[in-house]
Order: sequence, then structure tokens, then C-alpha cells
Amino acid sequence: MITKPTLILDEEKCRKNISMMCEKARRHGLDFRPHFKTHQSLGIGRWFKEQGVNKITVSSLKMANYFAEDWDDITVAFPANILEIDAINSLAESVNLNLLVESVETASFLNGHLSQKIGAFIKIDVGYHRTGVDPEDSELIDAILKEIENGELISFKGFLTHAGHSYDVRSIEEVLEIHDTSLKIMAELRSRYGEKYPDLIISIGDTPTCSLAEDFSGVDEIRPGNFVFYDLTQVCIGACDLDQVAVAMLCPVVAIHRERNELVIYGGGVHFSKDRLEDEKGRTIFGRIVEKNGDAWGREIPGMHVKSLSQEHGVITVPAEKISKYGIGDELFIIPVHSCMTADLTNSYLTSAGKNISRLYL
Amino acid sequence: MITKPTLILDEEKCRKNISMMCEKARRHGLDFRPHFKTHQSLGIGRWFKEQGVNKITVSSLKMANYFAEDWDDITVAFPANILEIDAINSLAESVNLNLLVESVETASFLNGHLSQKIGAFIKIDVGYHRTGVDPEDSELIDAILKEIENGELISFKGFLTHAGHSYDVRSIEEVLEIHDTSLKIMAELRSRYGEKYPDLIISIGDTPTCSLAEDFSGVDEIRPGNFVFYDLTQVCIGACDLDQVAVAMLCPVVAIHRERNELVIYGGGVHFSKDRLEDEKGRTIFGRIVEKNGDAWGREIPGMHVKSLSQEHGVITVPAEKISKYGIGDELFIIPVHSCMTADLTNSYLTSAGKNISRLYL
Repeated sequence: MITKPTLILDEEKCRKNISMMCEKARRHGLDFRPHFKTHQSLGIGRWFKEQGVNKITVSSLKMANYFAEDWDDITVAFPANILEIDAINSLAESVNLNLLVESVETASFLNGHLSQKIGAFIKIDVGYHRTGVDPEDSELIDAILKEIENGELISFKGFLTHAGHSYDVRSIEEVLEIHDTSLKIMAELRSRYGEKYPDLIISIGDTPTCSLAEDFSGVDEIRPGNFVFYDLTQVCIGACDLDQVAVAMLCPVVAIHRERNELVIYGGGVHFSKDRLEDEKGRTIFGRIVEKNGDAWGREIPGMHVKSLSQEHGVITVPAEKISKYGIGDELFIIPVHSCMTADLTNSYLTSAGKNISRLYL
Repeated sequence: MITKPTLILDEEKCRKNISMMCEKARRHGLDFRPHFKTHQSLGIGRWFKEQGVNKITVSSLKMANYFAEDWDDITVAFPANILEIDAINSLAESVNLNLLVESVETASFLNGHLSQKIGAFIKIDVGYHRTGVDPEDSELIDAILKEIENGELISFKGFLTHAGHSYDVRSIEEVLEIHDTSLKIMAELRSRYGEKYPDLIISIGDTPTCSLAEDFSGVDEIRPGNFVFYDLTQVCIGACDLDQVAVAMLCPVVAIHRERNELVIYGGGVHFSKDRLEDEKGRTIFGRIVEKNGDAWGREIPGMHVKSLSQEHGVITVPAEKISKYGIGDELFIIPVHSCMTADLTNSYLTSAGKNISRLYL
């Protein structure tokens, strides 16, 4: 029996999401290097292996070390942290390790301190403006390439981007516009550098574009991650339907305030994270409530949302005509706003069939 | 050597915060029952013991169980979760356990299922409107009291409130106004119920009011928690100075974008949580950067702030004239927006003197 906030995984939905994306990659002749930062679980990783996946993406060396038990081809899609050079060298002894480089300083440091071979992708900024080299800055790209060539232990793998601004839009058209821009930028890079580096890999990867696009011209590899669970943000973007979301938090009702049509749940920021969305009415929401359906969940309950989260409490707005249906000790399934961050706050998943699946946890 | 995001604890500042609040409680003749949800550490708990503290507050049974190793008088300041009745009974075997009750249903369930003695506080809503009984609703308070009296194993302890709306204001005057309202409401309850329950305890507890108020008339017990570390939110409220904040995240610089005056750090939502503040210019900020000062940190670096956080990345805005001072591999001390949530994402504190202090972690 579940007595406190518990992240429930619908294995069937999750496996469907995995096979859908594997199938899409196959259909488009793309290498599939899924990002495992969302689930961070060796167990779920094996569901990808069953579908023929043999290389992965992670976002830290800690995750890379964890997954090295099962995987020998890993890209750490995060600007190489030179302070972790010992961890890099030690990991590169046992796996094919790719790092991201976006400065001459980092490339030069790696050249001076690597004891093992690694692959390097140059991170390209296609408009998210978080990390990456401006694709127009040929001078910088050339300088990084020159530094990489100087290194005996680094080999240039290609150009990699993450169109993370696709998370901020709220329509399929806008996602596809972002994707088209990425394709053009990456194609331009290939035309500039393809002759010198005929094997260079063009790698893209964000869940909205990988879910929605059907044109992957010039792309060699995709690296989406969130699709394994999806979440409310992806529903709002239009990247999936609510019934594709494979995780929900089950939370006990601990107080009822009929005078303001609110339920208080045991389930707060330490369970969900504090990611938020704006709904169609401009209200900030922290989750949506779905109907219980056997051991799993079904459709959304209209008019209900998580209105606020503090450390351990959540407050749920309920339509006046429904509030009397709820009692203390009831349990509610809540779809999280951002499944990567929510999953990061648990040490295991409980499947709706009652199976425990562990994950990396500190 | 620190190679990745690490929460650093300045033991001296922390001990000073503890003795300051102990002293304040003594000065006002108040029982001090500090909330341990902020630090969640037996080690830090012992610094309170050294100051004569002998009872604590927590916000979950999990925390209560963890602290039961050292503490035998614990209030769980969260609406009693009836689904955890087994954990309640088992814990109440070894400690004096107080729970919060705010409905007849919960009181009645406890009466029917307790096997051990517990104390019950009635939670009062003094204006935060998250949980608690409307203090005007004598009918409900009387009904809960009646149900508590029916129980052989529950004893009524008093009225407890948390003026959490004090976290939303941005001036000392507003905090003190909220506090005055709380005092009036609680005094009114004592005058209504004091004759029947001469030993009833009036318990209040939020860091802003406990830090700023000097009038505690009618209050028996205070339960602040955040003050042990303080944070950027408390600085904005005016509850502390920046140099009282006892924790900072040390983060490596992994990329530099001079064209937009930004540094990218290894340090994201999984390290800081995604709590945010609005600064004086209306910008959303996720942390402030402070100068390195020996092994700890000193003054704020003006004009710099954490502008955004994704899962593992943070982006820092830097004044144009300062950006050239930073290099890849540098480390920055960052003061978190909400230390309770940030601390919840680590399994230990590293003191600036290099000592590891463990804490509860899942």
C-alpha cells in the first residue's frame, strides 16, 4: 500500500514511447543515441537495448559512470568540465567517450591532460543561447578544430546541437520552425566542413522536434530524452498527448478546504521539483490531476490543477461541484510539469504493476 | 579538490545563527522547538543540543524517524497523513510525538487507529491559506476538540500556526504586520479556550517573524527552521543580511560567452532546485554570486546573478567590464534562493573547513 508521495511508472506507456522513437529513427535512417538523463535507470535502459539501441547520451560524468555498467558508447552532452579530468580519463579507459567542446581553452586543456582517447563534438548554438558556438563564428570553430587536431588523443566527431528553445514554444508550427532553422544551420556546417571531415556526425536532440518533425535531412543522429516519460510541458507544446505521459505522482490527500475549493496533498517541491507552466488562463500550474484507472491512470480530471507547491505540501484547486467527492486519505495521480526534474527526486520507480525499478541517486 | 557542484556550509555562520535564535527564545521566555526540515542533519542537530535545545519540529514522518535517534520530543508540523498510521504508531512508541490535526475526520481516524499516545495541535490558518482551520470557525474547532477528547490516546496540546505568507512580502514592516495579526488571532484563541485548557501551548514559527519580531506576547513556543542557513529569499524579505547566509553552492565554470556577457556553470535545477526571486529590476533570478574569501565566501559581487537554470546548467549574467576576469575551470560561490530546497538535493554538507556532515537523504 502506498502511504506517501510515490512516482508511478506505467511500463506499457514507457515501452511504447521507446519503441515509437526507435521506429522513427529507423524510418529516417538515423542513429539513435537517446538521452538517459530523464530516467537515469539501468533497468529502463535495458528496454532500449531490447529495441537495438547501443549508444547513449547523458549529461554528467556521474551518470556516465553509472551507465558504464551496461553501455560502452556514451556522449556526455554537457560542456566538458575540465575539473573532472581524472574522472574523464578513468571513464575513457572502459568506454567510447564523447565530450562537448565549445572553446579553445577546453580543447587545449584536454590535449594537455588526457591519458585516454576521447571523441569531441563541437557544440553549436542554433538559437537556444545557453551554450554552444555561434555557427557563424568560423574563426572560433576553426580555432577549436585546430586545437583538436593538435591532440593525439582527441578525435573530432562532428557538430552537436540542442534546440532547447523548443521547450518554450506552445505550438507544433513553432517547434517545426525551430527545427527547420536547426537543419539549415547544421547543413551549412556540413557544407563548410564536410570535405575535410567526411565522417563528421550531425547530432540533434530535443524531444519536441524529434517527436514532431518528419524531415531530418542532413541529420545523422538524434538524442531526445524526455520522450521516454513525456510530461505536462510536452503536452502543452503539442509534442505528445496526455495519455502518452508514462509517469505520475501518487499523493495522499491530507486536508480539505471546502470554503476555498482546495485539497492539500502530501507532495511538494521536494517530490515534484518546482517547475511550472502557465495554463490557458494565465495561471501558474505545477501539475494536472488524472483519473485512477485500475492500478494506473486514465484521463485528465477537468478543472483541477496543482496551484502551489511548498516543501512537502501541494495545494490543488478543485471545481466547487467536485470538492465533496474527495476525502482525507484519498490518493490522487498527478502528472508532473517536468518529468526529468521530478524523476531526479526519487531513487526508484514503482510500476503500476507493482515492480520496483531503481535509478541513479546521488 | 572540488570538481562538481558542492554545497558548502560555513559552520561559524551556522552556529552563530543557531545561538542567535536560542538567545532570542531565552530572552523572550519562549520554548524553542526549531524546525529541522531545512538542515535535516543529525550532526547539525547536535549544535542545537549544545545550546540546550531539547525538542524539535520536522515536516514528515521520515524526518521524524531519522531524528528519533537523537531526539525524543518531536512535532510533525504537517497535517497528519492517516495513511501513515503504522509509522505513527511505531514512532510514538519511542518518542513524544505531536501531530497536527485540522479536521474531525483525521481526529476520528486517529482515535480509531492509534495504539500509542500522541499529542495533537490544532493547526490554525492566520492568513497563509495553505492549511489550517479558520480561527473564526469555532464550530469546527469545537468539533475537533470534542473528537480529540473522545480519544484516550490523543491529548490536546494547543494551537499551532505557520505564517508562511511572511515569505511573500519584501519589507520588515509587512512581516511585523503579519506577525501582529498572528499574535492577535492566537491571543483570541487562548482567551476562548484557555480556561478549559490552562496548559494549552500557542506555537508559531516562521523565520521572517522569528528573526524580526521583538513582541511575542501570548506565544509559548517558536518553531523557525530556515534561519539555520538563511538564504537569498530571507535577505530580500529583510530577515537577515547576506553575510548571515551559511550555505553556498560552489560551481565550476564550464563555458564563457563574452558576446552576451554570460558564464555557464555546472550547477542546475538538480543542485539548486528551481526556486526563484524577482530582483529590484523585475528580473527573475536563481541565485547571487559572492566573492571567494579564503576557504569560505565574502561579499556579494555586484551586478552578477544566476539568470536561468536547466537540469545541470546554470547561466550567470556578468557585467561587461568583469567578464574577462573569468576563465574556464574557475569556481564560483552561489547563494541559493531557497536553502531548504537546495539542501534537500544533497546528501551531505562540506564545511568550509573541509569536514563532511551527512544528512537525511531519501
